[in-house]
Amino acid sequence: MTAHTNDNAASFPHRHLLGIEGLQPSEILTLLDLADQAVEVSRQVEKKKAVLRGRTQINLFFEASTRTQSSFELAGKRLGADVMNMSVASSSVKKGETLIDTAATLNAMHPDLLVVRHHAAGAVKLLADKVGCSVVNAGDGAHEHPTQALLDALTMRRHKGQIAGLTVAICGDIRHSRVARSNFLLLNALGARVRVVAPRTLLPASVDRLGVDVYTDMRTGLKDVDIVMMLRLQRERMSGAFVPSVREYFRYWGLDAEKLSYAKDDALVMHPGPMNRGVEIDPEIADGPRSLIREQVEMGVAVRMAVLEALAAHLPNN
Amino acid sequence: MTAHTNDNAASFPHRHLLGIEGLQPSEILTLLDLADQAVEVSRQVEKKKAVLRGRTQINLFFEASTRTQSSFELAGKRLGADVMNMSVASSSVKKGETLIDTAATLNAMHPDLLVVRHHAAGAVKLLADKVGCSVVNAGDGAHEHPTQALLDALTMRRHKGQIAGLTVAICGDIRHSRVARSNFLLLNALGARVRVVAPRTLLPASVDRLGVDVYTDMRTGLKDVDIVMMLRLQRERMSGAFVPSVREYFRYWGLDAEKLSYAKDDALVMHPGPMNRGVEIDPEIADGPRSLIREQVEMGVAVRMAVLEALAAHLPNN
Amino acid sequence: MTAHTNDNAASFPHRHLLGIEGLQPSEILTLLDLADQAVEVSRQVEKKKAVLRGRTQINLFFEASTRTQSSFELAGKRLGADVMNMSVASSSVKKGETLIDTAATLNAMHPDLLVVRHHAAGAVKLLADKVGCSVVNAGDGAHEHPTQALLDALTMRRHKGQIAGLTVAICGDIRHSRVARSNFLLLNALGARVRVVAPRTLLPASVDRLGVDVYTDMRTGLKDVDIVMMLRLQRERMSGAFVPSVREYFRYWGLDAEKLSYAKDDALVMHPGPMNRGVEIDPEIADGPRSLIREQVEMGVAVRMAVLEALAAHLPNN
Repeated sequence: MTAHTNDNAASFPHRHLLGIEGLQPSEILTLLDLADQAVEVSRQVEKKKAVLRGRTQINLFFEASTRTQSSFELAGKRLGADVMNMSVASSSVKKGETLIDTAATLNAMHPDLLVVRHHAAGAVKLLADKVGCSVVNAGDGAHEHPTQALLDALTMRRHKGQIAGLTVAICGDIRHSRVARSNFLLLNALGARVRVVAPRTLLPASVDRLGVDVYTDMRTGLKDVDIVMMLRLQRERMSGAFVPSVREYFRYWGLDAEKLSYAKDDALVMHPGPMNRGVEIDPEIADGPRSLIREQVEMGVAVRMAVLEALAAHLPNN
Repeated sequence: MTAHTNDNAASFPHRHLLGIEGLQPSEILTLLDLADQAVEVSRQVEKKKAVLRGRTQINLFFEASTRTQSSFELAGKRLGADVMNMSVASSSVKKGETLIDTAATLNAMHPDLLVVRHHAAGAVKLLADKVGCSVVNAGDGAHEHPTQALLDALTMRRHKGQIAGLTVAICGDIRHSRVARSNFLLLNALGARVRVVAPRTLLPASVDRLGVDVYTDMRTGLKDVDIVMMLRLQRERMSGAFVPSVREYFRYWGLDAEKLSYAKDDALVMHPGPMNRGVEIDPEIADGPRSLIREQVEMGVAVRMAVLEALAAHLPNN
Repeated sequence: MTAHTNDNAASFPHRHLLGIEGLQPSEILTLLDLADQAVEVSRQVEKKKAVLRGRTQINLFFEASTRTQSSFELAGKRLGADVMNMSVASSSVKKGETLIDTAATLNAMHPDLLVVRHHAAGAVKLLADKVGCSVVNAGDGAHEHPTQALLDALTMRRHKGQIAGLTVAICGDIRHSRVARSNFLLLNALGARVRVVAPRTLLPASVDRLGVDVYTDMRTGLKDVDIVMMLRLQRERMSGAFVPSVREYFRYWGLDAEKLSYAKDDALVMHPGPMNRGVEIDPEIADGPRSLIREQVEMGVAVRMAVLEALAAHLPNN
């Protein structure tokens, strides 16, 4: 009953998707090719493909994220899976059950695919080591968020033809961003040139080892880039002395028409959402003709369908 | 793959159902006819019709409502849709995302049908203007709750043969009630005579322009009516000086056998639920032979199936 | 459309499963036999059986329980039902609706199966008396939790061949445990010998009428038993003077290798989960070769599939 399995899917050799780290460029391209096909499924009247029929997908979110969870839920349902959502609020975590016990419990229910978000870096890997099913990292602490990087790459590729040779500026709160980290890895792997543009206080200590060019001024940082990717200001993750004022932040680091004018004439604007309008981005830019922000959401469902399909090709007994 | 589409459904010309306002009487009757058919589907062993197979329905509730959300969820599932629930509590609203951004984000995921409840009047219309899919208003502030009025009408029609010529008394907290407002519009459109029966403090300022007869005494208000529709006392929406005591309220405005005796001998009793037993209605009446309260719930699922089916007939590419 | 109905299912004569009390031994065995078949369904690639296709299952949880609710949700989905979860937090209970009104409301939506957890003993029975569908007790107060006892029995039977003749020690917080109570009934019905091992303060007042042997020391209580079933210490249900310290509790009542050495050499260890590691059980034992704790979770899905299938065979119109 594994009809409709895709040759592309079969050529992806990993059982889990825990991060961009460790993926070969060709494997990333396989996922993007699969995602291009998945885009068409969601645009049909009957948005269905039978790849995961009879399979069980569990979305296990230790951190709330409507957007990402919804995207995975729709992706699974459109592939025919039985999808079950489990959120922390109502879970055994409150009763003091350990992460490993939770994993082992779920595993005993014979899921095929486990989509996990957790507030701690490394927690998803720990869990993947304990279960028999395929695990997808839907964001773990400040570590990785691989499907976000994949959907960003898919969006770029559909507009620019290829990733190789692009100059991409990732701007803002790099320090607290797993999105940034997964994007560095993916964009470097596919041959893009990556710049980070941020105040020193929002750069990670390890910035010199990330293989990116560092700018601390928006105008010089955006000069001649193809893509401007703004990050969400994660004020909720900040502690201690430095929490920037919103007005001050927008003045120096928010993307507006004037700052964007330093980029190439055909530069495009991205944001992983949800946006703080008027903080990291001017609403006029967010809703303007050069914004790909809505399209990123559409590509999100497609990329998650691609990942689920690729992993399903390697499930036991398949 | 649009088998099973109903001729009735195809004759409903609107893309959205935002309110009863703007519907022609013939269009309301089309929905009621479709709902009569849907009642039979839910009474079958296999409660399924393939009208929405492969379609995506998102229930977006900014205000909790188990009853209405469940009704829409079952309606969508029985029509074969993939249904996804999104509640405010876990949503990006907490992160400060605007209503429009939420709408645009959802829209990018290619839903076919979006069912929305919101605490602000007009919010559902605002959202409908921004998305490519069909939108159903599941209650917006004190504005409209069209599927409630439709299920009320369906229930009445199945017992009384037709709406035209009936005298309907709507009693209690008119001021805070979107249910009352949608009912005024629908009942007037179909030729019923509508009375409101309430203390002055629970009448809206605009009561003289609503096309209803106003009574401020239950006994005269109920005299010779066919239908007594009690409303829930919305104490949670009241502020300032006047919050009635429960005991006082029941004495003057609660429906009991004595007050009901003023209505016609075959008068029937309705309530949109959830009831405050002993506040706006005597439990004996609520559970008695003249109560249609349980049947209203059953008709709720049927009416929502009818609305989803009617809108689906006008989806792009269908 | 009732293909795939099982002869075993048809021989189970009850419309509801409210407790182990009232079941004949042969009926319990019928459910265990059905569950053995269901185990195989969940181990297949396509985990589906069409028994409940087009049927509506509602999980109504007045008390949060991720584990049990998930198990019922997967069970229903794997049998092809449309499954809807309703939790208290977002329900009309907050608006003061009574249990009976909630039941009547749900019933009007034509569910086929209603799975209910409630904090009050007897609430599920009360509700079952008011609805037209089949009801499964998923735990009511300190009364019963029949599917837990069934999954425990299934797990034992698969390892020991039969229940009759086994000696089972149930240890720990007997007083607050519906799991213990359902297990007493089931194990006695099938001919096992049951011991309870607990401090006096954690025994119910009625212990002498339970048909079990009482031990107040772990070493003598575990002597020569086949099965050691540890219970979760329900500190959240304790009030007043006696709430044991964790360290003290583990020393006297926690299962460790030394205490387990008093049981038979091939004795097996069970726990309904979620575990308090280091409180009622040593992690080494929980994860060791004699532990059946993970398998109990797998059997949980199978037993719930069996129960749903057995009840479905007696639904109206089937």
